[in-house]
Amino acid sequence: MNKKEDFTVTPWEVTGEVDYGKLVEKFGTQLVSDEQLKHIEKKAGKLDFMLSRKIFFSQRDLAPWLDACEKGKKVALYTGRGPSGSTHIGHLVPWMMTKYLQDAFGCNLYFQLTDDEKFLFKEGLSLEDTHSLALENALDLIALGFDAKKTKVMIDTDCVKQMYPLALEVAKRLTYSTAKAVFGFNDQTNVGSIFFTTMQSTPAFIPSMEERKKTGKKDASVQVLIPCAIDQDPHFRVTRDIAGKIGFPKPSLLHCKFLPSLKGSSKMSASDASSSIYTTDSPEEAEKKVMRAFTGGRATIEEQRKLGGNPDVCSVCNYLKFFFEPDDKKLEERLAAYRNGDILDGENKAYLAEKVKAFLKEHQRKRELARKQLDKFLYSE
Amino acid sequence: MNKKEDFTVTPWEVTGEVDYGKLVEKFGTQLVSDEQLKHIEKKAGKLDFMLSRKIFFSQRDLAPWLDACEKGKKVALYTGRGPSGSTHIGHLVPWMMTKYLQDAFGCNLYFQLTDDEKFLFKEGLSLEDTHSLALENALDLIALGFDAKKTKVMIDTDCVKQMYPLALEVAKRLTYSTAKAVFGFNDQTNVGSIFFTTMQSTPAFIPSMEERKKTGKKDASVQVLIPCAIDQDPHFRVTRDIAGKIGFPKPSLLHCKFLPSLKGSSKMSASDASSSIYTTDSPEEAEKKVMRAFTGGRATIEEQRKLGGNPDVCSVCNYLKFFFEPDDKKLEERLAAYRNGDILDGENKAYLAEKVKAFLKEHQRKRELARKQLDKFLYSE
Repeated sequence: MNKKEDFTVTPWEVTGEVDYGKLVEKFGTQLVSDEQLKHIEKKAGKLDFMLSRKIFFSQRDLAPWLDACEKGKKVALYTGRGPSGSTHIGHLVPWMMTKYLQDAFGCNLYFQLTDDEKFLFKEGLSLEDTHSLALENALDLIALGFDAKKTKVMIDTDCVKQMYPLALEVAKRLTYSTAKAVFGFNDQTNVGSIFFTTMQSTPAFIPSMEERKKTGKKDASVQVLIPCAIDQDPHFRVTRDIAGKIGFPKPSLLHCKFLPSLKGSSKMSASDASSSIYTTDSPEEAEKKVMRAFTGGRATIEEQRKLGGNPDVCSVCNYLKFFFEPDDKKLEERLAAYRNGDILDGENKAYLAEKVKAFLKEHQRKRELARKQLDKFLYSE
Repeated sequence: MNKKEDFTVTPWEVTGEVDYGKLVEKFGTQLVSDEQLKHIEKKAGKLDFMLSRKIFFSQRDLAPWLDACEKGKKVALYTGRGPSGSTHIGHLVPWMMTKYLQDAFGCNLYFQLTDDEKFLFKEGLSLEDTHSLALENALDLIALGFDAKKTKVMIDTDCVKQMYPLALEVAKRLTYSTAKAVFGFNDQTNVGSIFFTTMQSTPAFIPSMEERKKTGKKDASVQVLIPCAIDQDPHFRVTRDIAGKIGFPKPSLLHCKFLPSLKGSSKMSASDASSSIYTTDSPEEAEKKVMRAFTGGRATIEEQRKLGGNPDVCSVCNYLKFFFEPDDKKLEERLAAYRNGDILDGENKAYLAEKVKAFLKEHQRKRELARKQLDKFLYSE
């Protein structure tokens, strides 16, 4: 195995330097096409920078979802989070895209918080822990400005009565052999972890179930689009394989890359708090993390002025690209200046730090206001 | 493997001629002791024939449950049924014992109907099917005269919000390796079936959970006794192994033998309707089944008068012993007369048929009345 191939991506582990080209090939997904981008741009008025910069780069069946939107059919969005700790900026990437799509296409969002998953997969977490983390994580979603009337937050242990019958339909059709092949389970895996993916399937079907209940039409269906980081794709391969067999449309997928770690590797590490900026970090803490971040700089200032920096491996540049500099022109200029040595790490870090502090201050204010709104977002039948 | 050992007992399959002595050894259970029988007799006033005849013959930790009763501690009963079809007489055996114990010890019964299990394990059944079968099966329980104030019927898909968090606690501590060894799963088993035993564990813990909620004492516990057919023991071995690790007492068990098939083998077959008498059979149908039953008779009447019959292998005698002749003296006399040739099959069948018809007539009357009571029995938080 050469170095380029030396990476692993599963819903529970991302290691090595991810080659997204190879990953698309391995997972069998498609790149987002220019035509699809144009379709979205036309509808939204403006193409979100996460799409134009190819942060959201891969898809499955995005076309049928866009087509359903075009034809005025019922559509929905579904994304979520495994509540294993505080929310970090990397988690916000798919949520921001989801917000953009909800605003553009005006559809409902089902937001799943898998407190069961994180309890089952993480040694040190109790169900009480993951449930209260789920409520905390929901505050971050609400703080982004989602519309309570169109957003249903589903915490698995709270919504299990709605989810379990659908999970059983999936579970009956999923052999251990397939689950093992898709997720890499072994004999020591606990039986809850083996079952869990069936719960993650269910929000892909709940919009159709609700529509059937509402209209009395047994074959009513809602086309669901799932914006998510690409490590979640294995879950939805299973979902898509089984959807047709249980009378639902296959959900569409829109995949993003991972926000790289502040330490320079492919994905933030939940076990190393300094590798990511959490929405609950104080602006001062966050600033310190930025100032200590891995960059694309050279050994000396002199060298960097002469040879330039490498923005591709620079976590400061990547933070600007993924989240903190939505202005394409400003970003381009900055990255070019970094590449040719006109901007050095100190200034670049200071620029990002200001953006981060401003974002956190505002987000944390909205996040506190969200506590009072929480009840309006929680799913009830 | 010699013929005596050539049998299989799992929760989903009983084949061959079951040697109960060997089964106790294989499962590692204990026989019910004379001391335990005396304890129950003293409390109940009279020893139920299912105990004196050793139909209930095996146990795990029966002593701590009796001890808890003696000391006035909180105790409960838990039994159930997998709703894969109509209830037959074999199912009523543990329910009758449970009724006797509830009357004697005055405790709550948690009655689980595993509609999820039967959906997962049976190819042709939908969740709607198993849920409506669960409601039908509950009528048979109610018809036996259980007290609504002390009896909580839990249908898994209806009670999953209460059960799922407890099932997750079990699931986190149960590896696939153990589940495979206990239940004989393989790579083709569906992931729902692998997970299911954790749901069957939960009614063993729910009484303690309720007590904790009621009293506010985090370590409050209720000792639970599970009367059941011995094929359910593997589930509760898992439950017992994990109970201590999640802060609950190990449930006690009281096992019964299987009501033999009317065709003569160890256990009734759900796939052959003539091998069992269903509570919904018309008295005439039931009579026909009895008249065609496998007996311990001889080739000719003459031979039988001379050599006598074999009541041990006779399904008619077994039906009397397990259910339809509660009077020990009458049973003994009849079996002795059958053994020495004084009673022939025709008379024996006619005797049983009368008992069966009378039982069904009365049971079916009560069963219809139960429809109106059903709501009072269904578990709600």
